[in-house]
Amino acid sequence: MTLSSLPTISNVNLSQIRLEIRTLQSKLVQWRRQFHQYPELGFKEKATAAFIAQTLTEIGIPHQTGIAKTGIVATITSPHPGPVLAIRADMDALPIQEENEVPYCSRHDGIMHACGHDGHTAIALGTADYLWRHREAFRGTVKIIFQPAEESPGGAKPMIEEGVLKNPDVDAIIGLHLWNNLPLGTVGVRSGPLMAAVECFDLDIFGKGGHGAMPHQTVDSVVVSAQIVNALQTIVARNINPIDSAVVTVGELHAGTALNVIADQAKMRGTVRYFNPQFKGYFGQRIEEIVAGICQSFGATYELNYWWLYPPVINDEKMAELVRSVALDVVETSTGIVPTCQTMGGEDMSFFLEEVPGCYFFLGSANPDKGLSYPHHHPRFDFDESVLSMGVEMFVRCVEKFD
Amino acid sequence: MTLSSLPTISNVNLSQIRLEIRTLQSKLVQWRRQFHQYPELGFKEKATAAFIAQTLTEIGIPHQTGIAKTGIVATITSPHPGPVLAIRADMDALPIQEENEVPYCSRHDGIMHACGHDGHTAIALGTADYLWRHREAFRGTVKIIFQPAEESPGGAKPMIEEGVLKNPDVDAIIGLHLWNNLPLGTVGVRSGPLMAAVECFDLDIFGKGGHGAMPHQTVDSVVVSAQIVNALQTIVARNINPIDSAVVTVGELHAGTALNVIADQAKMRGTVRYFNPQFKGYFGQRIEEIVAGICQSFGATYELNYWWLYPPVINDEKMAELVRSVALDVVETSTGIVPTCQTMGGEDMSFFLEEVPGCYFFLGSANPDKGLSYPHHHPRFDFDESVLSMGVEMFVRCVEKFD
Amino acid sequence: MTLSSLPTISNVNLSQIRLEIRTLQSKLVQWRRQFHQYPELGFKEKATAAFIAQTLTEIGIPHQTGIAKTGIVATITSPHPGPVLAIRADMDALPIQEENEVPYCSRHDGIMHACGHDGHTAIALGTADYLWRHREAFRGTVKIIFQPAEESPGGAKPMIEEGVLKNPDVDAIIGLHLWNNLPLGTVGVRSGPLMAAVECFDLDIFGKGGHGAMPHQTVDSVVVSAQIVNALQTIVARNINPIDSAVVTVGELHAGTALNVIADQAKMRGTVRYFNPQFKGYFGQRIEEIVAGICQSFGATYELNYWWLYPPVINDEKMAELVRSVALDVVETSTGIVPTCQTMGGEDMSFFLEEVPGCYFFLGSANPDKGLSYPHHHPRFDFDESVLSMGVEMFVRCVEKFD
Amino acid sequence: MTLSSLPTISNVNLSQIRLEIRTLQSKLVQWRRQFHQYPELGFKEKATAAFIAQTLTEIGIPHQTGIAKTGIVATITSPHPGPVLAIRADMDALPIQEENEVPYCSRHDGIMHACGHDGHTAIALGTADYLWRHREAFRGTVKIIFQPAEESPGGAKPMIEEGVLKNPDVDAIIGLHLWNNLPLGTVGVRSGPLMAAVECFDLDIFGKGGHGAMPHQTVDSVVVSAQIVNALQTIVARNINPIDSAVVTVGELHAGTALNVIADQAKMRGTVRYFNPQFKGYFGQRIEEIVAGICQSFGATYELNYWWLYPPVINDEKMAELVRSVALDVVETSTGIVPTCQTMGGEDMSFFLEEVPGCYFFLGSANPDKGLSYPHHHPRFDFDESVLSMGVEMFVRCVEKFD
Repeated sequence: MTLSSLPTISNVNLSQIRLEIRTLQSKLVQWRRQFHQYPELGFKEKATAAFIAQTLTEIGIPHQTGIAKTGIVATITSPHPGPVLAIRADMDALPIQEENEVPYCSRHDGIMHACGHDGHTAIALGTADYLWRHREAFRGTVKIIFQPAEESPGGAKPMIEEGVLKNPDVDAIIGLHLWNNLPLGTVGVRSGPLMAAVECFDLDIFGKGGHGAMPHQTVDSVVVSAQIVNALQTIVARNINPIDSAVVTVGELHAGTALNVIADQAKMRGTVRYFNPQFKGYFGQRIEEIVAGICQSFGATYELNYWWLYPPVINDEKMAELVRSVALDVVETSTGIVPTCQTMGGEDMSFFLEEVPGCYFFLGSANPDKGLSYPHHHPRFDFDESVLSMGVEMFVRCVEKFD
Repeated sequence: MTLSSLPTISNVNLSQIRLEIRTLQSKLVQWRRQFHQYPELGFKEKATAAFIAQTLTEIGIPHQTGIAKTGIVATITSPHPGPVLAIRADMDALPIQEENEVPYCSRHDGIMHACGHDGHTAIALGTADYLWRHREAFRGTVKIIFQPAEESPGGAKPMIEEGVLKNPDVDAIIGLHLWNNLPLGTVGVRSGPLMAAVECFDLDIFGKGGHGAMPHQTVDSVVVSAQIVNALQTIVARNINPIDSAVVTVGELHAGTALNVIADQAKMRGTVRYFNPQFKGYFGQRIEEIVAGICQSFGATYELNYWWLYPPVINDEKMAELVRSVALDVVETSTGIVPTCQTMGGEDMSFFLEEVPGCYFFLGSANPDKGLSYPHHHPRFDFDESVLSMGVEMFVRCVEKFD
Repeated sequence: MTLSSLPTISNVNLSQIRLEIRTLQSKLVQWRRQFHQYPELGFKEKATAAFIAQTLTEIGIPHQTGIAKTGIVATITSPHPGPVLAIRADMDALPIQEENEVPYCSRHDGIMHACGHDGHTAIALGTADYLWRHREAFRGTVKIIFQPAEESPGGAKPMIEEGVLKNPDVDAIIGLHLWNNLPLGTVGVRSGPLMAAVECFDLDIFGKGGHGAMPHQTVDSVVVSAQIVNALQTIVARNINPIDSAVVTVGELHAGTALNVIADQAKMRGTVRYFNPQFKGYFGQRIEEIVAGICQSFGATYELNYWWLYPPVINDEKMAELVRSVALDVVETSTGIVPTCQTMGGEDMSFFLEEVPGCYFFLGSANPDKGLSYPHHHPRFDFDESVLSMGVEMFVRCVEKFD
Repeated sequence: MTLSSLPTISNVNLSQIRLEIRTLQSKLVQWRRQFHQYPELGFKEKATAAFIAQTLTEIGIPHQTGIAKTGIVATITSPHPGPVLAIRADMDALPIQEENEVPYCSRHDGIMHACGHDGHTAIALGTADYLWRHREAFRGTVKIIFQPAEESPGGAKPMIEEGVLKNPDVDAIIGLHLWNNLPLGTVGVRSGPLMAAVECFDLDIFGKGGHGAMPHQTVDSVVVSAQIVNALQTIVARNINPIDSAVVTVGELHAGTALNVIADQAKMRGTVRYFNPQFKGYFGQRIEEIVAGICQSFGATYELNYWWLYPPVINDEKMAELVRSVALDVVETSTGIVPTCQTMGGEDMSFFLEEVPGCYFFLGSANPDKGLSYPHHHPRFDFDESVLSMGVEMFVRCVEKFD
């Protein structure tokens, strides 16, 4: 794919695409609110999947359901032979009690679409609708992947394992995240690392408990833990090339049950983030080295469970350039294109990007004037729905420009 | 009181006292098991107090009940004029589920005499019984104080406030603690500090929470807490004269609710111990200095609640010498007298010792051969009951030797 | 400047440029060895400057000397009107005793060209020689800047203050660093930050000394320093956006004069590095916050001297693209172009780049097969001299392609 | 020896002893100033020893010289058979430049009697003088030991090894230290531990040096050292029974040579103090555990040299009681007897006390009204000379009361 070799087929009148997509807006809002009202946790997206499947059926788009439990793939084939591009959307919600007071508020207690996946799904469904009706306008095949369980424990990997990228084989993949960290209507796109690898750990420190007044008979797990927390800071501060990006966070530390009893045990839990795929394996080993040495210093023992969750989201250079050029058409000003949009947050879109070249990008969805600027995962998270048709336009233009 | 001026009245035949006291042993065991089976928490010692009062009444000893809710004072006056000596026993049990399998096991769920107060009370009652019958053998008056709520929140202070040391005014006080840290039949006695002052603190650290992958948007309360725990170690290690004794323990540290969320808040709780009464006020101030400075370093804030619980248990030199000389008679070998018996544990006996000179001592009660060596406050704590008559003998001889 | 608007003048036969430049190689080596044998420290580059001036005079190139003491600017004007491009080379050596055993070894005791500035100067002189003879082949004016004192204390700023970028006004600037961290003949070039801002600090901690056995009479500056070193780790680990790059290093820590005396004072010295210009001012303030808070925690005082040395080296996007495209011509394979060449090292080239758009790049100069791979500033540092004509070719082609 | 069996010989008129000793005062001052003017370092006390020997010869007291190089023993035998009591004085000075401006100021550059050993020696010589003339007044034998090198490296041990406590065998030993921490004329005496055991260590941490901007290529020995200093605080704070006394001091910490170079190596030196002889061996092992574990955590290595210097000074209960009773006679008020005089400072008197029962005590020598209150080892240290005859009286009365 090079920009100079784009098919003439893409030289349609730009305004017409947008005008037509905009007629989908009310349907997009209706769908998004449907999903928002009935949020479902990872691998339990039954109603969501059923709604998607029914809509695809109504439109007439061939699709396969039940991939990785609740996943769906819609396949739209152009009469013009060409490459296979996948579009990925995630369907799952979060275990958060919504605090918004809107008509389309979550009707499931303690569950909420607080990360915008309802929007992602609506955009993907709208894109399918449009592309089905305009399958003359692009070449090749588009596979639209509705993925379960992005938040936890990850639906991308099982979908890949069940063959979602095969038959026909996908050549490239794109996906987007509505992003309240960016102003409405801007596009965050960059080549290379966009989001971080995610690793996690559970660490139990076993000291020896005892009377709070008799420390010499104990191994104080609070003191050992404090030394470990301090020492862990040096991983990012001293061990990692400053050019690279990394995070080591101890999110939880719990020790002790009474103020006058020395805690026999401390429990820490945390997360590690990085971009550089070469770091896979490094942090778990480095954390264990630190913990083992300090435990030895203090006569404590430990149990470390360290697991790798997601690889980093790394965009392909050419696909990122495709999305960037499309964004220039859609946003109509280069100041609306934000390359400095990296985040240490994670995404299991990364599994797809390990398999095929692709580009994941952010679509600015905040609108502070309307009070729509709460961060993701906040009980008051919401986004400006006018971004929905823009999302469809991004996808549609990418499809039409992809070669 | 000097040793050289002891009344000739004490020159009775030693064997006879002991022989007679030993006839009380079965009654002592019966009483102790009664208390053990029906343990009651602080200020709720209703059945215990009722039993004591009824027994005193049956014996014929004048007594006053309802002091500091459940406290009792029995007063035994010799026909020989003389000083007033108080004997103190504590009556309350602990919120612990007994795990012993003995016939006299606790019948109150979740409550247990796991610190030997049942023994203390039985010994005091036996002492009253004996002294009443032998009130010719000593001079002056003996007040036997049955105190509630030693473990928590402290019954000594309210009893003093309700006048237990007045009318007649108490000249000196003694008390004992059955002590599984010493071999059966030994006596731990020393002049000066025996047990520590007790202070406590609740410390809340307020940082700023956030996504575990975005530390720069947060003030990580786990990291701040770790720095504080480390810095607190320097109080004992650097600020306190090494000749003095002190403990600063952080017994609890709790922060965070998810491994990938930086904790906005950490909660620490701890205890401070020391002997030197001049330290009163010092530790709270020093801890606050450390916490304030480190919070300032990291942009966190804090709330420190620091409270003083009990003063140190400090024995009077002459009263300690009295107990020591009595112990030599009772134990019959100086190797059974243990002066190095200090502990940083606390006791509200200290409030009495602030008012009048006195001596608190330990009576070795462990018997590993019988499996009776679990530490105090352990669900399997128990002691060798043969120590009960020895406790009575200690008290009786102190009374007879006191001048 | 856009790539599509390059003048046809650059469409000369590539091989010819290179062939002609290669004839300069023996002269380049001779010059470089001249500089290497007579190294001079910052602002004392008298012999070096005299040699450059004489050579320029012999060639006939107009130039101005004595700028910022020893700096020189040669100005070469094409008959074709056009923009003004500056080329910058640094002339100073380091206070290092050379340990190489080569015929051109340093003849100045304790002074050595251990960073390749001898090569930079020779390349710039060769570039002047070539361009003077081929001033028909480019458009506009080239100013070749021979700068003193890059290592310390910085000659770029005073040269700018003395007007080196004015009259005629410079439109853009380029420069190169021979780089033993890259394989011979590769080019490290990237848009945006390439090298770090440099800041430094001196920190004195004032405790209270005393006898090593009496810590309670002291404020132990060793303990305070240790807490500070630990806390400083959290700046990079927690305060800086992980996407950004930063370093906080305590390079020196000195406290105490006897093992049994508690140190009254500790001295720390360190350096800070970062790319993001917005951090200017941040680190000094953050370090002071940490130090002030911890000193307050421990009853110590401090004196912090913090100074800003160099801004980051940030390349202009278009100029970086120019250098990259030239490098593709010179290196003849894209694998020889290394965009991941950032380093937290500093360079006062940054002052020029703050004034005009430009690009600083690395020219791989290591040749392990010839034992030429010691790191910069090592007493055995040396580079493969065959890189010299390649440096000239890079500069010449940039000049000819610049528009 | 018991107090009740003291010989009637001690029932002389108290005033007469004192009156007679006071006539020695001018000689004591003269001797003390002689020693003060010509101070000599450990094992180099040649002029001091020569002066003592000559004086003893002039008086006529049998003595042996050259024990442990410069040590002397004078032996005074009473015509009344009895036990053998040793009196020990130390002769050596310190490598300190005196800053006092007194007529008897040190005439040896950089050497000074800054710890009062000049006074100790004068008192011992005066005691010899008096006892020789009054050898009818006591029973048995007195050996007066003039010991070299107390400050360093210790002369007590070699004197013992050369038989100073044999022939005749010494039954008990006493000694005193002039003590500016106590008011003039008071006596610090206590049974049990008085001064601490002394241990020392040298600790080298080997990391890996490198550029201050490239921490990931290094093992930062400054950071490792800071973690170690922090962890060492927990030995006293957590590992040692709070009832016991201990100090762990890092007196020196030196790392790094340039602010922008990460230090490859750090050097720490420190001292450990404790009373409890059971701790011998513990601290060296505990420090090594901590260092080894933390070095392992950070990929550093270490070299620890740990050595034991002096045991604790532990007074015998009966000998302490003897000194205390004598002090009551001399001081004439019990408020002048200070039992709370323990210090973590060390003394090689401890080696004598390991061999025979004895008592080392402090004689208050400060007089702030005369500006005589500088601490020991200060360049302006001096004491009130009126204490000299009091020291002789203490020793003489101990000799006469010892049985």
